[in-house]
Amino acid sequence: MSGQTALPHPEPEDFSLSTVLKALGDPERLTIVAQLAQGPQDIGECFRDNPNVPKSTRSHLMKVLREAGVIRNDPTPNGPGRRVTLRRDDLEARFPGLLASILASSQL
Amino acid sequence: MSGQTALPHPEPEDFSLSTVLKALGDPERLTIVAQLAQGPQDIGECFRDNPNVPKSTRSHLMKVLREAGVIRNDPTPNGPGRRVTLRRDDLEARFPGLLASILASSQL
Repeated sequence: MSGQTALPHPEPEDFSLSTVLKALGDPERLTIVAQLAQGPQDIGECFRDNPNVPKSTRSHLMKVLREAGVIRNDPTPNGPGRRVTLRRDDLEARFPGLLASILASSQL
Repeated sequence: MSGQTALPHPEPEDFSLSTVLKALGDPERLTIVAQLAQGPQDIGECFRDNPNVPKSTRSHLMKVLREAGVIRNDPTPNGPGRRVTLRRDDLEARFPGLLASILASSQL
């Protein structure tokens, strides 16, 4: 079942600054990340502010964020869904202060 | 003479966070910005670390940075060339702490 697929996630030492910035350099992805800063979400919730985004586009947006190291996208432990988590600690370890400054700027 | 053309530059209040992040989310553009953090440069110097970048690509890279508000690209006061300046104060005014954290991360 696709909901239970374990997807690959890069290690923090493999994060690239330009790849992280590119992942965040898109209004829809930035909105998702700002939401996730409030806490993990089921994948459907990530698009509550952009409900008209097609499913194929949603998959791509999440893939770019995951492959950059910005989010984790994991099977829900006890269900068929998927849980999305901001990798705040991993990003902080690799690029201290970066995510905090971006999130603060996203509120301006 | 093209060297004397005044190009448009956005006002800080018109800067968009995702546009700034996208502009910096490219290794060549990030390298240019990290160099400009040391001080203004003539436009040719901006590519000293990427000497094989074709002229058309150079123009596009500089345009993306300029239109995002990251750099100024002005005619040299007393010559035919162009001078490129990081808009550090304007970025700081619009997105406090953002550029500093990105530049710090670019050194890691």
